[in-house]
Amino acid sequence: MYKGIAGSEGIGIGNVVIIEEHEIVIENKKITDTDAEIARLQGAIEKFVNDTNAMADRMEKTVGAKDADILRGHIQMLQDPTIEEQITALIVSEKITAEKALDQVLEQTAEIFAQIPDELLQQRATDFRDIKARILKILLGIEDYDISAAPAGTVLVAHDLTPSMTAGIVAENIAGILTEVGGRTSHSAILARAMEIPAVLSIDGICTAVKNGDRVVLNGTSGEAIVNPDAETEQKFAGLLEEYKKEKELLKKFAGVPTVSADGTKVELVCNIGKPEDAKKAVECDGEGIGLFRTEFLFMDRDTIPTEEEQFEAYKSVAETMKGKPVIIRTLDIGGDKEIPYLGLEKEDNPFLGYRAIRFCLQRTDIYNTQLRALVRASAFGRIKIMVPLVTCVDELRSVKAMVADIMKELDAEGIAYNKNLEIGIMMETPAACMMADVLAKEAAFFSIGTNDLTGYTMAVDRGNSKVAYLYSAFNPAVLRAIKRIIECGKKEGIMVGMCGEAAADPKLIPLLLAFGLDEFSVSATSVLKTRKTIADSSMAECKALADKVMACATEAEVQAVLAQQ
Amino acid sequence: MYKGIAGSEGIGIGNVVIIEEHEIVIENKKITDTDAEIARLQGAIEKFVNDTNAMADRMEKTVGAKDADILRGHIQMLQDPTIEEQITALIVSEKITAEKALDQVLEQTAEIFAQIPDELLQQRATDFRDIKARILKILLGIEDYDISAAPAGTVLVAHDLTPSMTAGIVAENIAGILTEVGGRTSHSAILARAMEIPAVLSIDGICTAVKNGDRVVLNGTSGEAIVNPDAETEQKFAGLLEEYKKEKELLKKFAGVPTVSADGTKVELVCNIGKPEDAKKAVECDGEGIGLFRTEFLFMDRDTIPTEEEQFEAYKSVAETMKGKPVIIRTLDIGGDKEIPYLGLEKEDNPFLGYRAIRFCLQRTDIYNTQLRALVRASAFGRIKIMVPLVTCVDELRSVKAMVADIMKELDAEGIAYNKNLEIGIMMETPAACMMADVLAKEAAFFSIGTNDLTGYTMAVDRGNSKVAYLYSAFNPAVLRAIKRIIECGKKEGIMVGMCGEAAADPKLIPLLLAFGLDEFSVSATSVLKTRKTIADSSMAECKALADKVMACATEAEVQAVLAQQ
Repeated sequence: MYKGIAGSEGIGIGNVVIIEEHEIVIENKKITDTDAEIARLQGAIEKFVNDTNAMADRMEKTVGAKDADILRGHIQMLQDPTIEEQITALIVSEKITAEKALDQVLEQTAEIFAQIPDELLQQRATDFRDIKARILKILLGIEDYDISAAPAGTVLVAHDLTPSMTAGIVAENIAGILTEVGGRTSHSAILARAMEIPAVLSIDGICTAVKNGDRVVLNGTSGEAIVNPDAETEQKFAGLLEEYKKEKELLKKFAGVPTVSADGTKVELVCNIGKPEDAKKAVECDGEGIGLFRTEFLFMDRDTIPTEEEQFEAYKSVAETMKGKPVIIRTLDIGGDKEIPYLGLEKEDNPFLGYRAIRFCLQRTDIYNTQLRALVRASAFGRIKIMVPLVTCVDELRSVKAMVADIMKELDAEGIAYNKNLEIGIMMETPAACMMADVLAKEAAFFSIGTNDLTGYTMAVDRGNSKVAYLYSAFNPAVLRAIKRIIECGKKEGIMVGMCGEAAADPKLIPLLLAFGLDEFSVSATSVLKTRKTIADSSMAECKALADKVMACATEAEVQAVLAQQ
Repeated sequence: MYKGIAGSEGIGIGNVVIIEEHEIVIENKKITDTDAEIARLQGAIEKFVNDTNAMADRMEKTVGAKDADILRGHIQMLQDPTIEEQITALIVSEKITAEKALDQVLEQTAEIFAQIPDELLQQRATDFRDIKARILKILLGIEDYDISAAPAGTVLVAHDLTPSMTAGIVAENIAGILTEVGGRTSHSAILARAMEIPAVLSIDGICTAVKNGDRVVLNGTSGEAIVNPDAETEQKFAGLLEEYKKEKELLKKFAGVPTVSADGTKVELVCNIGKPEDAKKAVECDGEGIGLFRTEFLFMDRDTIPTEEEQFEAYKSVAETMKGKPVIIRTLDIGGDKEIPYLGLEKEDNPFLGYRAIRFCLQRTDIYNTQLRALVRASAFGRIKIMVPLVTCVDELRSVKAMVADIMKELDAEGIAYNKNLEIGIMMETPAACMMADVLAKEAAFFSIGTNDLTGYTMAVDRGNSKVAYLYSAFNPAVLRAIKRIIECGKKEGIMVGMCGEAAADPKLIPLLLAFGLDEFSVSATSVLKTRKTIADSSMAECKALADKVMACATEAEVQAVLAQQ
């Protein structure tokens, strides 16, 4: 049995197809007919461009526009005119093969990017090496396995899934994915979950441990895979697969019904989204609104700040898609681990404790005013609410409210419509906000608890740092107390208190959140039905009794022990 | 009038002596007699070594052993045998002057260090350039101004103070220091404070704005300097100087008396120290004990972990110096902004939220056990208490207590004496510890509030980041609430609650701390008398009324406004 990272949930049973990386050998020979060599080069580049365009078109349908754009970016990188000129010049001057010249020029280009200590530019080095490898394969006549031709019941095994590989995947035919590298937030994992293919990642040496045609069963929920299982094991996994499907089926009866606890307490169950298009998925999955629209994605993967008009269209489209259901839009939350190169932010020693989110926005009011104006204008088209991230002082909330009030006056003067009762609330995610929750609740229209950052700051832990990951837990009594305090302070002032982020979908945490009085659970679209079921299975009386026991615990281990008894 | 950074308090009046950096010009001539040139080189190196040793000896007496060691380090760096070999080889092969060859070799060496993105190694580049400049001056016959010969009433003006300059300072003769670079924690500032010379730092272009002999008055407390003041201004500064001296004199009556508020509440007033030697200064300044001995200094500026014996001697010496007065020793608090190269800690994205302090120690129990054993053994020689930094969970305290209990059993078996009632307390500096203060107070022997980190974590601000410095304030209501909560939880369980760090000496904060019930104020030795006076001037009744007003404030600005009315 192999243990890896649970990358995409579900049970897979099938036969191995290994996606091998072919070794590329370039001969060191001199050529005489340089024109013929240049023609070979041009032919290969043309084929590369055509293949890549076709792949991107396929990918756009199966996975999404953003991933397709990565591939189209490869074409643009290659079409830098100096690159083809350099290769051609080398062929002529050195009398070397197209392979040799291409390898030399692209490797040199990649090397330049690789040496710059900037993650984005280093990614460009990887891209150049990917392009190089694919054109070399065309020149050398090496054919990669055509993933789109994989038969039904295939378990793909690869070192890593690259965008060009995943472009070919036909989801119905792929029973599972195993890779040697990557974590839960890697490209492979995100794609696997988007296609609902079970995946176990980071299994060391799996590519050499299996051979084509091997039978494999895998559990993408627990992160296990077994190669050539005995009949009994395969039987067991077939049972698990059946169960998994049945549970998915069972969840369907939770579609289209309100979110109510076993003893009748009604709460709101809404979705976290990152792109305007995701709102459709939220509707499909029966979300009752949007609890967190992360607007920074509008600012990423581009070279300029989005205009008011672009932002307005994006916010309006979400508001319209949600047809009057609440849509909480978080204003720009950059900095920390989210970089936007064109904003020219300086490198910081402790970016999580630095110039980010509302701190950045209140300095760069040029950028922030544009976003707020787009939001206020979009509020005419649905139930938009504005959420301010990383608040530590009530002054910050007051500043945002003052800016919005000025914008409303401007719009009045211009005769532009907006919602005069537009709500402005706070993302509760700093210890300072928790300490001041009673004061903040008097001036905020709502709270939404950002569990990730609240946990990190409370425990003084960077969640990305594996050395101290053992301290990063929402079940630590300190964090549970912070959550409880925020909810209680909000309830006392009669405002809505929600939670956004995956913690709101955690079946162990949900009973405690219900007991504390949480009004709104904001989860990913795919977790809506499961969360609704968890809430339906919980009675408030039991939740409160459980919460009493949990809140008497002194350590996280004690909390976990109490919850494990449930 | 020039505004700069208040580097060292006090009033200075005197005449300018500019410490110029001489321009070094190296001729590009060929030589014939290479032996003579090599002899010149060797002579210069010998003079450099002798001068530096003499300087280091002087410095050891006036400033301290650590700074003297920096200079002695320069000699070691130069005595790397390959360096002299390289220079000699260049003289022979290229027929160039000793100056040219030395410049080339040392600049190249410096360049190598400068290119490594590591602060410590870049410092080494600065050191090599300092060595280079000093030997070149010897070779070229350039004589630096002899600071030790500066007449009484000299105001030194320099771009920056280097260790080799400060070695010559005779404190009685230097009325003040002005520099073009450096902040409150720069080498220059620390040295100026150690020598009690008023200093204003970071005055742009001051070296060219004044000339030798100019009259200068400066205020090192407010960070102001005036060149060639009119008679009225000089008169005013003479008055301020008189007042400053009088105040210092006045404070003397607070020596040797207990620390009591105006209405009779007694508190403890102890000192923060960084080195065993500092304990003497704490006694001289009438500290009632040590509230924080930062042990990481024992681990710094060396290449190996200090042995149990070395540590034992250091802890024992402090305990003995303090003659039965309490000595709170904080266990190793590295990581964050404190690096110890030989421990080989990895670079982290957010070191303040990373693998530091007790987190490191509980993983590296080899290192921690040695320190705890040294502490337990030293407890036989005075009133040592152990303080655990960066606690977020009661589990961490329990682990330390278990380690100490095991050590005590070992010592029993070995027949070695120790204090069986050795107290183990917590540095309260994380939001998690604040939230859990009631639970922690049941198991800790005492609390000491670390205001710097508590403020940083609560506000989610790196105190070193100027972009967000406006949020970093102990007077933010969120931080004041955290401080109040910690004190109240400690008091409720009847344990001592102290505060270490400069905040405990802040005359604006002291009345609030008294009102909250703080038992112990741990300040720098030089702040003892002033803090005792502030406490003596405060009545508990007034403090409590003030605290009620302050704690009703919603923002830091409101808090500051209330305090300004006092």
